[in-house]
Amino acid sequence: MVTIMVQVRVKPEFVDAFVEETKKNAENSLLEPGVLRFDILRHALDPAAFLLVEVYRTEQDPARHKETPHYKAWRSAVEHMMAEPRSSSQYVKVFPPEEDH
Amino acid sequence: MVTIMVQVRVKPEFVDAFVEETKKNAENSLLEPGVLRFDILRHALDPAAFLLVEVYRTEQDPARHKETPHYKAWRSAVEHMMAEPRSSSQYVKVFPPEEDH
Repeated sequence: MVTIMVQVRVKPEFVDAFVEETKKNAENSLLEPGVLRFDILRHALDPAAFLLVEVYRTEQDPARHKETPHYKAWRSAVEHMMAEPRSSSQYVKVFPPEEDH
Repeated sequence: MVTIMVQVRVKPEFVDAFVEETKKNAENSLLEPGVLRFDILRHALDPAAFLLVEVYRTEQDPARHKETPHYKAWRSAVEHMMAEPRSSSQYVKVFPPEEDH
């Protein structure tokens, strides 16, 4: 199991559009067999700052996700909405041991 | 629902001890009625970097957590293990709408 945290800051005028596009991507991503979770979080103090919490079954699944039509459509749709380049970090779970779902 | 992400970097010699103390804190925290999740993640490329993902039922629950004996015991046990001060950010969930458990 692999968790990828993607930090995103969008231009203020695109907050709603970003949420709409990212929900579509999240819903479709959850249909991928390798995707266990795809949460969209918004910073409590900064409405233009988001954190995507993507949990994959195996180390190969993030790359597979990036080949899907819904990921490519999302990437293109949100490209002009970014206030700064996205950054991401990969984590492995230490606790709890069990799968979420 | 409120998510708090706590970034921790420990001194390399304390990695195992930090994991042990933090598991104890996580197990006890999950018994609090206001705590929905308490995940310990380790950075895939940096074994001394951790991310604690704490999900609380309400906005009041993080403060209640900080009053518990297990939190206070953890804070004191790990204090000398920190390589740098911890940082934390609070998030609200945008998607998916349902509770995790």
